[in-house]
Amino acid sequence: MSERFDAVEVIRTKRDKGRLSDEQIAWVIDAYTRGVVADEQMSALAMAILLNGMDRAEISRWTAAMIASGERMDFSGLSRPTADKHSTGGVGDKITLPLAPLVAACGVAVPQLSGRGLGHTGGTLDKLESIPGWQASLSNEDMMRQLEEVGAVICAAGSGLAPADKKLYALRDVTGTVEAIPLIASSIMSKKIAEGTGALVLDVKVGSGAFMKDVDSAKELAETMVGLGTDAGVTTVALLTNMQVPLGLTAGNALEVRESVEVLEGGGPEDVVELTIELAREMLKAAGKEDIDPADALADGRAMDVWRAMISAQGGDPDAELPTAKETHDVLAPADGLLTQLDAYQVGLAAWRLGAGRARKEDPVQAAAGVVMHAKPGATVRSGEPLLTLHTDTPERFERALEALDGAFTIGPEGSRPDLLPLVIDRVAE
Amino acid sequence: MSERFDAVEVIRTKRDKGRLSDEQIAWVIDAYTRGVVADEQMSALAMAILLNGMDRAEISRWTAAMIASGERMDFSGLSRPTADKHSTGGVGDKITLPLAPLVAACGVAVPQLSGRGLGHTGGTLDKLESIPGWQASLSNEDMMRQLEEVGAVICAAGSGLAPADKKLYALRDVTGTVEAIPLIASSIMSKKIAEGTGALVLDVKVGSGAFMKDVDSAKELAETMVGLGTDAGVTTVALLTNMQVPLGLTAGNALEVRESVEVLEGGGPEDVVELTIELAREMLKAAGKEDIDPADALADGRAMDVWRAMISAQGGDPDAELPTAKETHDVLAPADGLLTQLDAYQVGLAAWRLGAGRARKEDPVQAAAGVVMHAKPGATVRSGEPLLTLHTDTPERFERALEALDGAFTIGPEGSRPDLLPLVIDRVAE
Repeated sequence: MSERFDAVEVIRTKRDKGRLSDEQIAWVIDAYTRGVVADEQMSALAMAILLNGMDRAEISRWTAAMIASGERMDFSGLSRPTADKHSTGGVGDKITLPLAPLVAACGVAVPQLSGRGLGHTGGTLDKLESIPGWQASLSNEDMMRQLEEVGAVICAAGSGLAPADKKLYALRDVTGTVEAIPLIASSIMSKKIAEGTGALVLDVKVGSGAFMKDVDSAKELAETMVGLGTDAGVTTVALLTNMQVPLGLTAGNALEVRESVEVLEGGGPEDVVELTIELAREMLKAAGKEDIDPADALADGRAMDVWRAMISAQGGDPDAELPTAKETHDVLAPADGLLTQLDAYQVGLAAWRLGAGRARKEDPVQAAAGVVMHAKPGATVRSGEPLLTLHTDTPERFERALEALDGAFTIGPEGSRPDLLPLVIDRVAE
Repeated sequence: MSERFDAVEVIRTKRDKGRLSDEQIAWVIDAYTRGVVADEQMSALAMAILLNGMDRAEISRWTAAMIASGERMDFSGLSRPTADKHSTGGVGDKITLPLAPLVAACGVAVPQLSGRGLGHTGGTLDKLESIPGWQASLSNEDMMRQLEEVGAVICAAGSGLAPADKKLYALRDVTGTVEAIPLIASSIMSKKIAEGTGALVLDVKVGSGAFMKDVDSAKELAETMVGLGTDAGVTTVALLTNMQVPLGLTAGNALEVRESVEVLEGGGPEDVVELTIELAREMLKAAGKEDIDPADALADGRAMDVWRAMISAQGGDPDAELPTAKETHDVLAPADGLLTQLDAYQVGLAAWRLGAGRARKEDPVQAAAGVVMHAKPGATVRSGEPLLTLHTDTPERFERALEALDGAFTIGPEGSRPDLLPLVIDRVAE
């Protein structure tokens, strides 16, 4: 079969700082999916994109081409509007768990297709799988029925969505081409747009525990993604939020489920509650329901009702005991004073090493492993009292987890102040 | 087996504009040769090098690593010094043919390991293979004996020299990463240094028919290669020479052999004679024989004697009739006037399309195909007289060759002057 373009010509165009044409982009993604463009050609192109960039129209076309490589879902038959949330990933980020039922309780359906964790950030599916009986895989029909009847579903994304992205992501991972904003943005947005949501709220994390370490690059990523969503007809808003410190007081699968249930019961850590309500407000507004206050549905237990229905619908027992770790180890505060810093990346790395995360996608995770924090920056601590408790089923892991925590916290004199970004740093919309 | 480095870390170093360490370079070339670094990783690295560059020390180390991937020849046992010439390739560039015997006739041995042509520039081995009986492949022992007894050998490079370069060159060809000066320079110099020559003269072509289209980039390439040779202990000099117009009056295999023999007989086109003597002078000087004038050995027939011995030693008959093309076609001058331009690339492309060159390395070439020029820029031409004659065994090729020549020449009023670079533009040495 004769091809419309030549891979080397496409690579050279971007290498020489040119604009890729719509036809070149459509061809190169399709030909890569078909295996006509080889991995070594796509990786050279990815490096040229990383170093020379793509403009908004190129990124839109690139995203559309990845969507066109697979199936597209359609929720337009539902009786209510849909809204989804995507987080770029952070330590202790369990927000999806209370958020999806809360938004559903306010009359907007939440089709949350999630992934498993890789590296130091946890995956939503890994967290929910710590609930006895709960199943991540649903057929499209079951998903649709649950959305209609319960209003919220959190399940595994099928392999049919944006297969080009799947192939390209695996390639970028081994070729040093992950950190390219056009490629990150199109990878996230191709899956979210193919998923068929009507509105999308992006939680772009900033700080040591996030993919984006500084506000400027996070803002560029947020603006790029909001532009892509808008171009595709999806109402899209992004919040830039703090990931210098972990979210809440837990990092680890069952630990985070327990904390999420506390939030649904009306308690839980202040930052988790605040961010859940803030993101719910954005989702409701993006879905055309700005007159509804999600704080009410959290306070009066309606969100908890949806949570219980959502877990039950996928085979889980919302009343079951969650697994607890066989062993724990306390990290004690070495001095009296004020906790001024607690590094998100280091806490995430420790939780990972304790067994909460995986290094390869085929690795198992420990449901009960993780880190419990007894104080967050701004709190007063007393020498000898526990600052962190490490949980694992395999105590030989404590040593490397403790190494990860070396220098992770700082205790200053009382009256000092943590130098931290606010929880919600900025909002990006068109 | 555990590896000393991780390919992604090496790629990231160069992607982020860092310096590759000696150890990283040695590892990545060795691991690529072993297949531990995958093609898609090396192509991403090649693109990062193309866009972010390497400094002199990095390029030297890269070259040394490619040399270390294979065998290294040694001519130190010969009774005379050695000097080699390398051209970056041009149209009608048959200089090696008269040059090697001329330099040998002056007492310096010339071990010329050559390649076959690809694209619009011809290959030295393809040219010599138009001589009945001549063989390109020699064992190392036969090569050494011929160098001692005849003083000059032009033969195929064995596959043992710099195998990493062979693998990398094939990869660069399909990934848009050919045009990187550090990679071009290290590719050429790794083979030439591994070949074991004591002195090296580089003919870096500049103009439409050359790889380097402008003087600045040609000079950068020349300086890089001279630096690499010097760092490796090989006395290295480069001339920048004109490739805006073809060299001599012929482009094509047997046609160029015939023209080379004319030069050895004391005739031949002025530019071929001048460049041959100029390069011979540089080779003799680099080999420590600056007191010998190569013009004498050309004039008195000693160079011709070495030519005959060199061809005979490799099975060729220096007195044999060379093949002639079955069909010819004249391109006539459309007007009276002065020829001001004759584009090297277009003439080379026409010769290629007539059958003198190959598109893939397994393609055969026609010995007799090519282009004969009846005038060069600066000459007066008369309307209706032949300007070019096209030669081929397959007349269906005339049409596309004529297309290649569209706009290839310009005839100005008498008294006008061609606007061309000099034959020898610059000289680069340390």
